[in-house]
Amino acid sequence: MKLDHIGIATRSIEKGTKIWQDLFGFPLLALREVESQKLKIAIFDAGGGVRIELLEPKGEDSPVAKFLERRGEGIHHLCFAVKGIEKVLETLQSKGIKLVDEVPKRGVSAKKIAFLHPSSTNGVLIELCEK
Amino acid sequence: MKLDHIGIATRSIEKGTKIWQDLFGFPLLALREVESQKLKIAIFDAGGGVRIELLEPKGEDSPVAKFLERRGEGIHHLCFAVKGIEKVLETLQSKGIKLVDEVPKRGVSAKKIAFLHPSSTNGVLIELCEK
Repeated sequence: MKLDHIGIATRSIEKGTKIWQDLFGFPLLALREVESQKLKIAIFDAGGGVRIELLEPKGEDSPVAKFLERRGEGIHHLCFAVKGIEKVLETLQSKGIKLVDEVPKRGVSAKKIAFLHPSSTNGVLIELCEK
Repeated sequence: MKLDHIGIATRSIEKGTKIWQDLFGFPLLALREVESQKLKIAIFDAGGGVRIELLEPKGEDSPVAKFLERRGEGIHHLCFAVKGIEKVLETLQSKGIKLVDEVPKRGVSAKKIAFLHPSSTNGVLIELCEK
């Protein structure tokens, strides 16, 4: 497992870009709109192969809108890249980790992804993505 | 700025080690007790020069105990390494970032550290540490 990105929930990608790119100097790599998840995403290069992804909801029924309402802006999830995601999920589940997604789904970049339940992982929402 | 570590608040380093080391395979690098911050810290190598630090409070008056009470287990802060921390703090403050520490203090490894206020940084508590 290797850290791939840190997802941060924000009310405004425009304001967020001023912080992460203009102040901290992390280059903006891409801006995406993901209709299936009702999200706008801004992706920054944080160095060392790690990206920071700002997540802005596109509607009140976006899961990130619910997160913002409940907890405010802040870190939403950590994503780790793995090889053979199906086998990794099977192994983790057999060792007691609760899965949000038992079967991987397609993420933003058409890579296979799956979320683990934070109740099993020190309150941290973890996404796994296929390398 | 380069990501140095992710700090995760936990009620039990012992249980946390089972997740981050035994299940996810991140090697435990060190265990430390920091009396000044009333913390036990377990440091894991998450690859790519990034570490995961589990933070367990040693008393009810530890800042991490208050975080756990308010928000439960989860990500407590991100730490980025910088060169010339005093100058970086000065620049950030002049651009409107609210600082928790205007003057750096000594961290766990005797490195200079300072925290930025999450109200300026998308709800993320950010630590800067001198490279």
